[in-house]
Amino acid sequence: MSILVLVDGWNSAPWVDALRSAMPDQLIEAYPDVIDPDAVEYALVWAPQSGALDAFPNLKALFSLGAGVDHLLGGDTLPAVPIGRVVDPDLTARMTEWIVAQVLLHHRQHLQYVQQQRARKWHNLKQPLASEVQIGLMGLGELGRASANLLHQLGFGLRGWSRTPKQLNNVACFHGTDGLDAFLSETDILVCLLPLTPDTEGLIGTAVFEKLRRDGALGGPVFINAGRGRIHVESDIVAALQNDLLKAASLDVFEVEPLPQDSPLWNLENLIITPHVAAVSNPKALSHLISRQVRAHQEGRELDHLVDVTRGY
Amino acid sequence: MSILVLVDGWNSAPWVDALRSAMPDQLIEAYPDVIDPDAVEYALVWAPQSGALDAFPNLKALFSLGAGVDHLLGGDTLPAVPIGRVVDPDLTARMTEWIVAQVLLHHRQHLQYVQQQRARKWHNLKQPLASEVQIGLMGLGELGRASANLLHQLGFGLRGWSRTPKQLNNVACFHGTDGLDAFLSETDILVCLLPLTPDTEGLIGTAVFEKLRRDGALGGPVFINAGRGRIHVESDIVAALQNDLLKAASLDVFEVEPLPQDSPLWNLENLIITPHVAAVSNPKALSHLISRQVRAHQEGRELDHLVDVTRGY
Repeated sequence: MSILVLVDGWNSAPWVDALRSAMPDQLIEAYPDVIDPDAVEYALVWAPQSGALDAFPNLKALFSLGAGVDHLLGGDTLPAVPIGRVVDPDLTARMTEWIVAQVLLHHRQHLQYVQQQRARKWHNLKQPLASEVQIGLMGLGELGRASANLLHQLGFGLRGWSRTPKQLNNVACFHGTDGLDAFLSETDILVCLLPLTPDTEGLIGTAVFEKLRRDGALGGPVFINAGRGRIHVESDIVAALQNDLLKAASLDVFEVEPLPQDSPLWNLENLIITPHVAAVSNPKALSHLISRQVRAHQEGRELDHLVDVTRGY
Repeated sequence: MSILVLVDGWNSAPWVDALRSAMPDQLIEAYPDVIDPDAVEYALVWAPQSGALDAFPNLKALFSLGAGVDHLLGGDTLPAVPIGRVVDPDLTARMTEWIVAQVLLHHRQHLQYVQQQRARKWHNLKQPLASEVQIGLMGLGELGRASANLLHQLGFGLRGWSRTPKQLNNVACFHGTDGLDAFLSETDILVCLLPLTPDTEGLIGTAVFEKLRRDGALGGPVFINAGRGRIHVESDIVAALQNDLLKAASLDVFEVEPLPQDSPLWNLENLIITPHVAAVSNPKALSHLISRQVRAHQEGRELDHLVDVTRGY
């Protein structure tokens, strides 16, 4: 029996090393260097190429690296085995840091103060209280909840939107297509933590930006995306940032990654770009989680955080 | 009887308006337009010029606007009346926002990602966990405690330093001259929230920066000052940022404010400057607090948050 690491576009070495430390008695192999494909029973996967998993007929379970699973669901050849989604407390903490940092940076008018610093200008901008600013969270899973908790403690007003009805403390919750307009109409800072599904693909563009609150305390709406790039429409974001439909934005995810050299996003003054680093999977922390899951599965128990393939997350 | 607003260098109009709303039955006057100087019994003050308060012989109490009181204590003509320090929950919340924003921004390597964005470079920087980073707070009053609480929840390690011994949950506390070196030796991000006193003036410069942890997870120490500018030595900060004794810094306060046009601080790439806006006093919120205090004092009760003039805060 062997455990396979199949991480397309990533360096597999840290994953192999971390798994070998966590499971010293198991054979760990990095795709495509596999001694006996029939012996592979478990695989850690990130964005496998179409058909790549077909070579392993005896797979018993997959572990999806990263919070989203859209990287797996694009292909048409997914084996009929359980897929466990990785839920790592470190990953949640990192995402919370990134979201809170971006929200505070826009709330405290960092981009304007940077411009003033460059111009050697000493000028006190009008500063709203956090309680005067509404954060609208799209996606109320583990990550959305953790961010909501911290943002509430900083004093922000919170609204949330999800596909199905949810209830969160201190968050005014909306859901479904019917709830979207009411959710957007009083949102000042829109934060996307949605998974990429057929329903969410291309969901956030001009029509959504037009429904955000325009007369709020921040002087214009802000968009923050740490979910998946294909949920937003980049040509709409460029236009919105240029014509003041959006005051500013922070993007960690993009329609195509790495973001192409010729993208007009790179040099927009009111946009902050990070290269899909908001919450990076940590091989050491995750290998311990996966080691426990493999053992549990071998003993006949279900995987934690099972993915529902028809639902898309 | 009249209540005086004496705010040197600020616009007094919003203060007068807010006080008139909060105390419609009182005469509110803005310095120097006073009908009868003998009638002035209370004054809200910020940085009065030397001797300005001598014109009001019947003062019964002063209210210091802003968290620090060094702006009052420089003069030699302070009337012998109680001085109440303003402790405004909004002001504490604003300071917490600014501190958390600056800490997260340095922790998440924002300045490096901005440079990468300008160069259209897609590159994932090594990111430590918050638990691998120690924040060292100098000043453990209301503001320090509020910041410590949020930073703890974000997962950071916390150390604290104060003049006299203090105990805070989740903070390793040090105090006095004897405790300073041990406090600094494992600090990665040094945050100054100290009051300006003869003891703290010029306290933070090269000798302090040299004692900060150099082999921490962030790859070099960071200095953040939202206390008072004269606590730090700006020529030492410039040198430290240029020769990598400091990796980066955020300053909201300066030796001379407004920061002079020819200061070398303005265009250091690894320094973030804000124009003393971390926690600005809000006239509306504070007028209600002051209104209650005036009434309490007239009824013979003590002011809240009395300043000890000999101690300096």
